[in-house]
Amino acid sequence: MMPFEKKEYLERMKKVKESMNHKGIEVLLITDPANICYLSGHNAWSFYVHQILLVTLDDEMPIFIGRYMDAFCGVVKTTWLDENHVRAYPDYYVQSLIKHPMDYVCDVVKELNLDKKSIGVEMDNYYFTASAYKHLVQGLPDARFVDGDLVVNWVRVIKSDKEIELQRRAAKIVEKAMQTAIDSLEPGARKCDVAADILHAQVSGTQEFGGDYTSIVPLMPCGETAGAPHLTWDESRYTDNTVVAVELAGCHQRYHSPMARTVSLGKPSPKVEEIAKITIEGLNAALDVIKPGVTCEEVELAWRKTIGKYGIEKESRIGYSMGLNYPPDWGEHTISLRPGDKTILKPNMTLHCIPGMYFDDFGVSISEALVVTENGCETLANFPRKLFVKE
Amino acid sequence: MMPFEKKEYLERMKKVKESMNHKGIEVLLITDPANICYLSGHNAWSFYVHQILLVTLDDEMPIFIGRYMDAFCGVVKTTWLDENHVRAYPDYYVQSLIKHPMDYVCDVVKELNLDKKSIGVEMDNYYFTASAYKHLVQGLPDARFVDGDLVVNWVRVIKSDKEIELQRRAAKIVEKAMQTAIDSLEPGARKCDVAADILHAQVSGTQEFGGDYTSIVPLMPCGETAGAPHLTWDESRYTDNTVVAVELAGCHQRYHSPMARTVSLGKPSPKVEEIAKITIEGLNAALDVIKPGVTCEEVELAWRKTIGKYGIEKESRIGYSMGLNYPPDWGEHTISLRPGDKTILKPNMTLHCIPGMYFDDFGVSISEALVVTENGCETLANFPRKLFVKE
Repeated sequence: MMPFEKKEYLERMKKVKESMNHKGIEVLLITDPANICYLSGHNAWSFYVHQILLVTLDDEMPIFIGRYMDAFCGVVKTTWLDENHVRAYPDYYVQSLIKHPMDYVCDVVKELNLDKKSIGVEMDNYYFTASAYKHLVQGLPDARFVDGDLVVNWVRVIKSDKEIELQRRAAKIVEKAMQTAIDSLEPGARKCDVAADILHAQVSGTQEFGGDYTSIVPLMPCGETAGAPHLTWDESRYTDNTVVAVELAGCHQRYHSPMARTVSLGKPSPKVEEIAKITIEGLNAALDVIKPGVTCEEVELAWRKTIGKYGIEKESRIGYSMGLNYPPDWGEHTISLRPGDKTILKPNMTLHCIPGMYFDDFGVSISEALVVTENGCETLANFPRKLFVKE
Repeated sequence: MMPFEKKEYLERMKKVKESMNHKGIEVLLITDPANICYLSGHNAWSFYVHQILLVTLDDEMPIFIGRYMDAFCGVVKTTWLDENHVRAYPDYYVQSLIKHPMDYVCDVVKELNLDKKSIGVEMDNYYFTASAYKHLVQGLPDARFVDGDLVVNWVRVIKSDKEIELQRRAAKIVEKAMQTAIDSLEPGARKCDVAADILHAQVSGTQEFGGDYTSIVPLMPCGETAGAPHLTWDESRYTDNTVVAVELAGCHQRYHSPMARTVSLGKPSPKVEEIAKITIEGLNAALDVIKPGVTCEEVELAWRKTIGKYGIEKESRIGYSMGLNYPPDWGEHTISLRPGDKTILKPNMTLHCIPGMYFDDFGVSISEALVVTENGCETLANFPRKLFVKE
């Protein structure tokens, strides 16, 4: 059931251990479900309860610590971990007002004689709460805690060819989902019905490649709240003369390929047409400079210079690294395409370049997900890079 | 655009402040997106970046602190908060390796002269990371930090009539979605296609009530991994003689009504039939005892005694409080139906009673979402409580 061979997991473990060594981390307690999946192959909606993947420098295999129903059946049957590398806490630890699962994790760390080591924890991960941290620090007084945030994420930044193949499959799905969005968007259509059509296309996938749930739901800002791109749909209806900025992804075996396109219901105003033209010109300029050796801020600069010619500015970043992920974000929280990010691009990085232009009464978003190649970049999907007009 | 009148938000604020007073909390920094929505009306997929709702004992209105694109357009245009109660951090704080949004929050707390107060934080919330806590503690050395986890969640446990109306609408949607699941499940169908049909039904909703995304994706354990109920779908096909335990929800304006039913593809084995019969008998026994004044552990005991007659045990809890929520969980992390939970049931609590029976090779899950009434309980949905067999 695993999408990768054991050899690839071992290779990932090796890179993570190199980074641990470099940072003086002897034990890494991983909570990010994408990082857990990346190293173990465990893929389940089990992250709503506390769970940990424990990596030590000495053991080739990580240890999964989770709820009984997730650990034994799920992890043992679907990952490369053997039974000796799985620990399960009893159900009375789940969302309990008395017991905390991290107390159980402390017991495992002690049992393995790791309680005097330097322990890395993912300080700013969604699934590593302040309380989890407090319970670990109190329960392991002899350990030295080190910030291990993003240690695995930075390894994930460079994809294997097999990972990129999964993202290319996701790109086939996003092409279908975006076309579905364009077809469904009509004046008079309920927003929830358009969202339903998109979700069906995303999850059904293609005949060859089944779709997975995406880490962010389809976002379709328009009208008077177009400037707030993270509002979601309701049951109201699209009206004529509305510009809809559609951002969504395809997902296959947890690997994403996102895309944004903008749809005008009715003839767009000259202002919308102009912003779409400038956005595409800026996006093209950014894509043109992407190649190994270039820094992230140089990519953003190419965009900024281009739109600056027209007297336009944009405050927020124009892209980020992405791939394997779980809700609430498909971004990897590593690379951002923005001033100050001096990360040097390398082959097999995959980025979502999304220079969303959100104004008070309309938004234009046209993006590309891409892979950095040996001498440039290739988009993952193949979809017209234009403003779609439905008249 | 708000689903509730200002009066209801003021009532909620009053109850939260009473609880804050009781716990010695002068300022509550809220990160749980459901709690933020409950008190402000802000409903967006903006929780993938750090955001805070700040409640003080003196101000009738909370203050939203978030990313610029979410704060100004989203919050000001869609909630009862006025512009003076919104603060926005610049985009270079987003997933930055240098700046942390909680440093900005510290600045706001100081500006409001609240930095010497006792400050409650939601210690075990998904969206309150260890790093967020550390930045607050370091940035506000004169404050006294108090665990404010679940302060708002416990207020949410008792719903208003309007909230229950939204959950009843969600129940209409879950009836449709569950019927769709039963109709789509066939030997030979790809799991992703069944999931796609369900998601379409969930999000499209009914003609009257549009559907919203649910906080957990549809779960459909079956076959050799039936014992791991949180594994999600892939592109493999259902085979004949498979028992599928379907758990999903309807959602309307973020209010949930979950439901589980079990579908046998082909004639079920006597063992499956027996477990289904016992599960229903146990569920009925639990529902029969639910009324104001009864404790949560008494509800579980009624279930446990019933299945115990047949020599069967179940380790995990059989239910929890639910309603308004965001990924990754529709449960409220307060009430659990399990031994030791002495919470006394009161009218207008809404629970999901889900005694899932997961074995190595099949799972049976049959549940009801219900509201506690003046003298008993009523299920939110109306759907046959039985094992569905497709032959």
